[in-house]
Amino acid sequence: MADAAGREFFTTRTVADALVGFRPRRRTRAETLPLAAALRRVPVGPVTAPHSLPGFARSTVDGYAVRAVDTYGVSEGLPGYLTVTGAVRMGAEPDTAVTPGTAVAMPTGGVISPGADAVVMVEYTAEAMPGTIEVVRPVAPGEGIVRADEDVRSGDEIVPGGRPLRPQDLGMLAAVGVTSVSVHAKPVVTIFSTGDEVVPPEAAELKPGQVRDATASALAALVADAGGEPAIGGIVPDDPGALEAALRGALPACDVLVISAGSSVGARDETAKAVGRLGPPGIWCHGLAIKPGKPTLLAECDGVPVIGLPGNPRSALVVFRLIGMPIVRLVGGCEVSLPEPSTRARLSRDVASATGRLDIVQVKVNAGVAAPVFGVSALLSVLTEADGYIMIPEEATGLDAGSEVNVILYG
Amino acid sequence: MADAAGREFFTTRTVADALVGFRPRRRTRAETLPLAAALRRVPVGPVTAPHSLPGFARSTVDGYAVRAVDTYGVSEGLPGYLTVTGAVRMGAEPDTAVTPGTAVAMPTGGVISPGADAVVMVEYTAEAMPGTIEVVRPVAPGEGIVRADEDVRSGDEIVPGGRPLRPQDLGMLAAVGVTSVSVHAKPVVTIFSTGDEVVPPEAAELKPGQVRDATASALAALVADAGGEPAIGGIVPDDPGALEAALRGALPACDVLVISAGSSVGARDETAKAVGRLGPPGIWCHGLAIKPGKPTLLAECDGVPVIGLPGNPRSALVVFRLIGMPIVRLVGGCEVSLPEPSTRARLSRDVASATGRLDIVQVKVNAGVAAPVFGVSALLSVLTEADGYIMIPEEATGLDAGSEVNVILYG
Repeated sequence: MADAAGREFFTTRTVADALVGFRPRRRTRAETLPLAAALRRVPVGPVTAPHSLPGFARSTVDGYAVRAVDTYGVSEGLPGYLTVTGAVRMGAEPDTAVTPGTAVAMPTGGVISPGADAVVMVEYTAEAMPGTIEVVRPVAPGEGIVRADEDVRSGDEIVPGGRPLRPQDLGMLAAVGVTSVSVHAKPVVTIFSTGDEVVPPEAAELKPGQVRDATASALAALVADAGGEPAIGGIVPDDPGALEAALRGALPACDVLVISAGSSVGARDETAKAVGRLGPPGIWCHGLAIKPGKPTLLAECDGVPVIGLPGNPRSALVVFRLIGMPIVRLVGGCEVSLPEPSTRARLSRDVASATGRLDIVQVKVNAGVAAPVFGVSALLSVLTEADGYIMIPEEATGLDAGSEVNVILYG
Repeated sequence: MADAAGREFFTTRTVADALVGFRPRRRTRAETLPLAAALRRVPVGPVTAPHSLPGFARSTVDGYAVRAVDTYGVSEGLPGYLTVTGAVRMGAEPDTAVTPGTAVAMPTGGVISPGADAVVMVEYTAEAMPGTIEVVRPVAPGEGIVRADEDVRSGDEIVPGGRPLRPQDLGMLAAVGVTSVSVHAKPVVTIFSTGDEVVPPEAAELKPGQVRDATASALAALVADAGGEPAIGGIVPDDPGALEAALRGALPACDVLVISAGSSVGARDETAKAVGRLGPPGIWCHGLAIKPGKPTLLAECDGVPVIGLPGNPRSALVVFRLIGMPIVRLVGGCEVSLPEPSTRARLSRDVASATGRLDIVQVKVNAGVAAPVFGVSALLSVLTEADGYIMIPEEATGLDAGSEVNVILYG
């Protein structure tokens, strides 16, 4: 839509709408990685066990492999006696079978001797004379034993597709001898900064009115946290042609395109125009019902999700955490929502909020009390002083002092 | 201490004792990194701002820089009229001062013109005739303006020492032009596996009784999660001389030494003997009041913390998460405890526990209900099936079905 002056208008969406409705289809290609490089990477599909685990019946205790029936009825007062006919060594095949009235010494993890159906713990035995033990507690069949397929059965799914690999998943893959895994490549997220006032962080001297680019460094870190590969596109001046050319040039090589827009209304309009011309289907929304972060743009251009962020660093980071990180994760094949650290706390004071928008309030947390950190959205220190944030939902008009709130904590 | 047979005895400690009492002094050296490589790294000391931020008085809105006094008393019905004498461009010095009865057009983020003490939003103005605006709302002095040092004052601490750098911290460092930061080197954590039955994960064919090394891969991932640099030391046979030689060889090049011990009692005793001979002050505890994970050894040898883990992969991973990761973080300079994802849930069934030890129970969480995943400690699948774990404290004898529990979630 455009008005008579050629100015584009788009409906403002809620954050919930955006999370449900803006679901780009793009997924990164598969790549094969060794386990040592696969932590937090996302398998393209489920991985199944090529064989059972542990693969042989194993002892879970130090003791003696026995026929359970030979221990029935024994007690401290009336021990049973068994002849020890051998000992199993770790990592080796048993060379002695258990026959009625005999036992074979077993280390924890050793292979159960043929003929045995239980292992009695060494604590419930004593050497009666050389070569003979007394047993003072009965064992049931299966006691002290892990079956050959008790941990994993051959063909079982051991790791699902679409969920980042955790340390224990890597352990399980190693245990069944799967030493490489097919995972989604990290989404390449190209980050452009715009604004005639913006200069690189390494600029030694600033002219009056210039500011260093804080947003790109912080966004790159959020991209990495979301499993993406940040690519710094650089600073583009407030010129629609230059911006469009820069975005168009980056599009083929990236999986997600992020633009931290200039802070003025004019600069934001130019960003929207440039994005609108990039490719179909184009802009999905321009404006989110969130504070801070209203002037957010979401688009999909030639199969690449495009996120236009507000010019204020703080607003940009708040929005990217809520909306951008889930998109990066999705493009990287992650199909689950990952838990975030959080804590319950009581608000130290009243916090006002307008209905119809999601309010993100930064807080410091101390001894169960969440104290809001206030300041205009231009202040980055509000974010660095905060331990986390609370969300005041669209339908609320604010929260009273003493309200219990859920604080999402910065890790 | 040693008994007549030369067997060493050590007091069993609680997990809480270990976390408070076993505090190695070792810290890694400092290294200087660019911001792009500094996410989650731990600054060796506080970083202060070399200058104020934003460094000049800035507009927070699109509008007009004015003398606030010129707007007093205006309203929709009785607008004030001001002559527009210029416009500030983004990133440029103002070339026009504001004098009584005049205004200068301002973009958001622009430098406040000399003579102005407020900015009136464009929404509260209209062009009355070319070169003149009407103002329909009064502004107070300071409104619409961020002071030159409102975000950060020169010399303020912007990042503390000893806390991992978060995305917003990197943004703040970039904003003040600090593009590299002195951080603790990642602790090198060398991981040895022992056990005659253990073979590398890549072993194509196993002989009866052999098992692949699952623990080293998973421990390496936990080390990385704790900010360390894992170094796989390899598999050492159950031979005290070979183990001692391997540990002694690794000691000079590592910051933390981890041994996943053999699973049998004999193998564990040999690990303790080898560690006991490594260097002073030696073994701090051998035995933790935790299930699973009792046969845990903590030592400090020639300034290197040494962690001896139980032979069962699951026990080893549970203990390393609780005890090992905090040690790795500490050696890496982290002085704060980091929040972990967690959720409240209700137990699906009774869980028994012995008093005097901390019980770690793996659980699946679904719709607010935590269902324990049971199985002997030899089963790794208990960990891969779980979403997180609950802790049943030393003084409890168990938890009833329906109890509200705090589940620490695997991220």
